[in-house]
Amino acid sequence: MTLAEPAIILVEPQLAENVGTAARAMANFGLGRLRLVNPREGLPHGRATAAASGADHVLAAAETFATLGDAIADLKFVFATTARSREMAKAVRGPDEAVATLRSFSAAGQGTGVLFGRERTGLTNEEVSLASEILTLPIDPRHASLNIAQAVLIVAYEWRRSGLGGESGLPFGEEAREPASRVEIVRLFEHLESALDNAGFFRPVERRSHMVSSIRALLQRANLSEQEVRTLRGAVAALEGRPTRPHRSKDGTMSTEREREE
Amino acid sequence: MTLAEPAIILVEPQLAENVGTAARAMANFGLGRLRLVNPREGLPHGRATAAASGADHVLAAAETFATLGDAIADLKFVFATTARSREMAKAVRGPDEAVATLRSFSAAGQGTGVLFGRERTGLTNEEVSLASEILTLPIDPRHASLNIAQAVLIVAYEWRRSGLGGESGLPFGEEAREPASRVEIVRLFEHLESALDNAGFFRPVERRSHMVSSIRALLQRANLSEQEVRTLRGAVAALEGRPTRPHRSKDGTMSTEREREE
Repeated sequence: MTLAEPAIILVEPQLAENVGTAARAMANFGLGRLRLVNPREGLPHGRATAAASGADHVLAAAETFATLGDAIADLKFVFATTARSREMAKAVRGPDEAVATLRSFSAAGQGTGVLFGRERTGLTNEEVSLASEILTLPIDPRHASLNIAQAVLIVAYEWRRSGLGGESGLPFGEEAREPASRVEIVRLFEHLESALDNAGFFRPVERRSHMVSSIRALLQRANLSEQEVRTLRGAVAALEGRPTRPHRSKDGTMSTEREREE
Repeated sequence: MTLAEPAIILVEPQLAENVGTAARAMANFGLGRLRLVNPREGLPHGRATAAASGADHVLAAAETFATLGDAIADLKFVFATTARSREMAKAVRGPDEAVATLRSFSAAGQGTGVLFGRERTGLTNEEVSLASEILTLPIDPRHASLNIAQAVLIVAYEWRRSGLGGESGLPFGEEAREPASRVEIVRLFEHLESALDNAGFFRPVERRSHMVSSIRALLQRANLSEQEVRTLRGAVAALEGRPTRPHRSKDGTMSTEREREE
């Protein structure tokens, strides 16, 4: 919650719920600087807290200003969000481009903000004229109605996405898997193909080479782990009607192949 | 509304409002294929229509299925959205990466879909296991609560953003402006500097060259249009106490400089 991130500035929000849902959308993507300009329902407010779904720290830190001029006085670059053209000679940016600008100011330690207008009527032209540039969403013009929290959500999402660098930023990743070694893969192939030979699967026999190749290719694509190879070998053994629990061989190693080797 | 776009598949949504807000989020970014799996409140539903804010065509075209298996039967690639790890050996993608995959299937004419789970409990592990890969959002793990419509909104936004190619996709752009020609810019400089000379602005005189250079630089940065040059010249003339309306010169050309020339 520093100058390193843009302030989200709601201009005359009419309903406390919308302040709350905007705070929630900010928190979803890690933003925390909320400013309100002359809200009809001030903070703290029970409906704002309920709608924030736990983003209490955003509401608690929110600052309220009497005028838009006051709310942006300390900022160096401000975007006005709007869904319609204002016929102003002012740059119009999409969220990704706008966020790149915000990041460059932030990197220089300069405060930035993004203005969001009233629920029904948005920002006035006068308010837009106080902003450095216009931010608008690549929305389908036939269905341009987006509530405040949704607009905040997209901007917050882009902010977070743009800051990830090479990192995924995802809350979790793929399960760590120990890929099977080539020898385990080859043993699986041999086991499976032997089982299929015994079951009379490869008919006519001149097709065997092609069919083996197909099966090996699909198993390679699965990029199997050690555990998955064990699971598949157990499945093949079960289909063969053999014991599927590992058994200790005479040399002390564990295997499901004991019966075959004997 | 073709195979060219992913189906948005809501699994057992509990409230008709949420079906409506999801439809609205789809329409905002141009998606139209909605599928419902065993919804508690079926369509048509008054609260769904109200919440859709005009995205009636999405609701009207929505398809309802008894099981998830039925809903994805015709699709070739399906993402399951989830906010938490399922400890499955399954690829986990962010929205931009996932949408790139969806685009490649769509380009090949192959149907795709994205699953969204129940309001409180999301998708079951069994349901996730039916999907090709997992999609998750780069959300702040401390505030991971995102409602269905918000999750749909981010995916729909990424879909639209990814399809824009070189286009901005924004509903409006900067106002078309006719940049001023260099001669008009130079005349503005001369007019302004002459007025400032007359007003005794350039003091001490040895600073004049530096001050002129500064003023010219800032006016250059503004990348003025023809109209803006006229406006500024009018403003300077007004400050000089001269008539600011254009006058016709003896040679028939229009100018605000007539008085000076005479």
